[in-house]
Amino acid sequence: MAFSLDPWMAQHLQSVEQSLEGFLTLHAPAGSPWAAPEDLSQAMRYAVLDGGKRLRPLLVLAAFEAVRGAPASALDPAPMRAACAVELIHAYSLVHDDMPCMDNDVLRRGKPTVHVQFGQASALLAGDALQTLAFEVLTPLDDSVDPAVQARLCALLSRASGRVGMAGGQAIDLSSVGLALTEASLRHMHQLKTGALLQASVMMGAACGPASVATMQALEAFGQAIGLAFQVVDDVLDVTADSATLGKTAGKDADNDKPTYVSLMGLERSRAYAATLAGQAHAALQGSGLPDTSALAALAEMVVHRAH
Amino acid sequence: MAFSLDPWMAQHLQSVEQSLEGFLTLHAPAGSPWAAPEDLSQAMRYAVLDGGKRLRPLLVLAAFEAVRGAPASALDPAPMRAACAVELIHAYSLVHDDMPCMDNDVLRRGKPTVHVQFGQASALLAGDALQTLAFEVLTPLDDSVDPAVQARLCALLSRASGRVGMAGGQAIDLSSVGLALTEASLRHMHQLKTGALLQASVMMGAACGPASVATMQALEAFGQAIGLAFQVVDDVLDVTADSATLGKTAGKDADNDKPTYVSLMGLERSRAYAATLAGQAHAALQGSGLPDTSALAALAEMVVHRAH
Repeated sequence: MAFSLDPWMAQHLQSVEQSLEGFLTLHAPAGSPWAAPEDLSQAMRYAVLDGGKRLRPLLVLAAFEAVRGAPASALDPAPMRAACAVELIHAYSLVHDDMPCMDNDVLRRGKPTVHVQFGQASALLAGDALQTLAFEVLTPLDDSVDPAVQARLCALLSRASGRVGMAGGQAIDLSSVGLALTEASLRHMHQLKTGALLQASVMMGAACGPASVATMQALEAFGQAIGLAFQVVDDVLDVTADSATLGKTAGKDADNDKPTYVSLMGLERSRAYAATLAGQAHAALQGSGLPDTSALAALAEMVVHRAH
Repeated sequence: MAFSLDPWMAQHLQSVEQSLEGFLTLHAPAGSPWAAPEDLSQAMRYAVLDGGKRLRPLLVLAAFEAVRGAPASALDPAPMRAACAVELIHAYSLVHDDMPCMDNDVLRRGKPTVHVQFGQASALLAGDALQTLAFEVLTPLDDSVDPAVQARLCALLSRASGRVGMAGGQAIDLSSVGLALTEASLRHMHQLKTGALLQASVMMGAACGPASVATMQALEAFGQAIGLAFQVVDDVLDVTADSATLGKTAGKDADNDKPTYVSLMGLERSRAYAATLAGQAHAALQGSGLPDTSALAALAEMVVHRAH
């Protein structure tokens, strides 16, 4: 039976939104002194809900289904927790990246950025608390997720997010404004800044199910290829799309004199590179030994051919 | 044999410093593309090393030794990882709290604050990456720590740090500037902002060893009492000590019109309240059923009688 991405996405996106909403709603016992302050909760919800492509959660769920060989269900809480945790990390990074001392951006997902809406102090705290919440979500206090899986998910997510992952890439990005990077340096920066978390999404989904070492290696290669492809396409879109389509400020990278794939290799070679990476991603899936990787393959296509 | 805190502290502080140094040094394989950017690493090290009382790590190790009934050794990697993880969370919170959009402080541990030394963007990223590093430290990729313990430590630390813990308390603190809080509201704010992480330090140490439910409850009560006592004493010192002794700017809370125990109940009643809380802490230890809680008791005394 041919796989159709749209109904698969529609169903999973609904589950992801419901789960994110649930994790962002605090179920404190009535009269509990441990209530979260309302304005912090509001800023956190604003940063996460009603927006975002949810690419990372979809990758988690698709990878889980590929290794499990069956659709994810409510009986498998681990992959949905992993999916939401990755999205919370992504959301926190956007909140902090948009702040005046970083990219100083005012528009995100078609809405004012969190610091514009709530003030810088609240944006800083909301980002901090979203990062923490990701690890809360991965470690439920009931017995619903095998502790070994909890530990593995925390290990994967923390390493992809920190100094040798997303935060490290952001630091390189900051220090490279105005510099002429080599293609290798640019790729290294993006592997950390964007690639590590996309790759971790795939690995975390697979870590929720049974996967051989060979399968994990194939999915690691797949994740690396789509992680890079995502950024190449992002750089292309920054030049070719308008702000309304992107939901964020277009042309920002060029304005800020940031090195991009387009500035380094031009528009056409960047597009060709994205296609090459997509080919690498598909080859990795074919070498994975997994019987059905349709959803992962379709998501890879979406990454390369997206319009925003 | 009477317990003597000084040699115990000297020995454990040395181990903590060595371990923090180790965790902050990245052992990337030669030629690995996953190297952390040097300036991010520098800011992270600056924020953590060469300063700090290390009260939280000492509480972790003391609680572990109390439930284990023996000194912590290199054969128990879990408590030292827990100790360092808590300190990394504490360090990240200081970096972000000191930023201009928060407390705007320029002096910390007798040195320029991170944003003064490295700039705001680096301070933001270093804080973010220190938080992530805490969860990396709790989830070693080798088999040195039981995965169930890893999961439990991540669960405890994330809940103490996030929206219903430290970050939530910081948000309440921010929104209460200039307000006349009741004693209950002030206590609630501090239970979140400072108390939760101090309490979690005790719980995490105990979670590394065998502890009955009754023991955990007693240690929870102990942790709550010293968490509050710490903040009451902090407020007293903010009024009575000078900046050189504190290693940070004294009188800051009053200048910022922040509600404190001293502003609410006066100096003498604040001191009496700290003594009451110390009594509660000792009572909890006596009810814990643990044969030797000398180190925990001595740390509680230190919290109340410290000069900085």
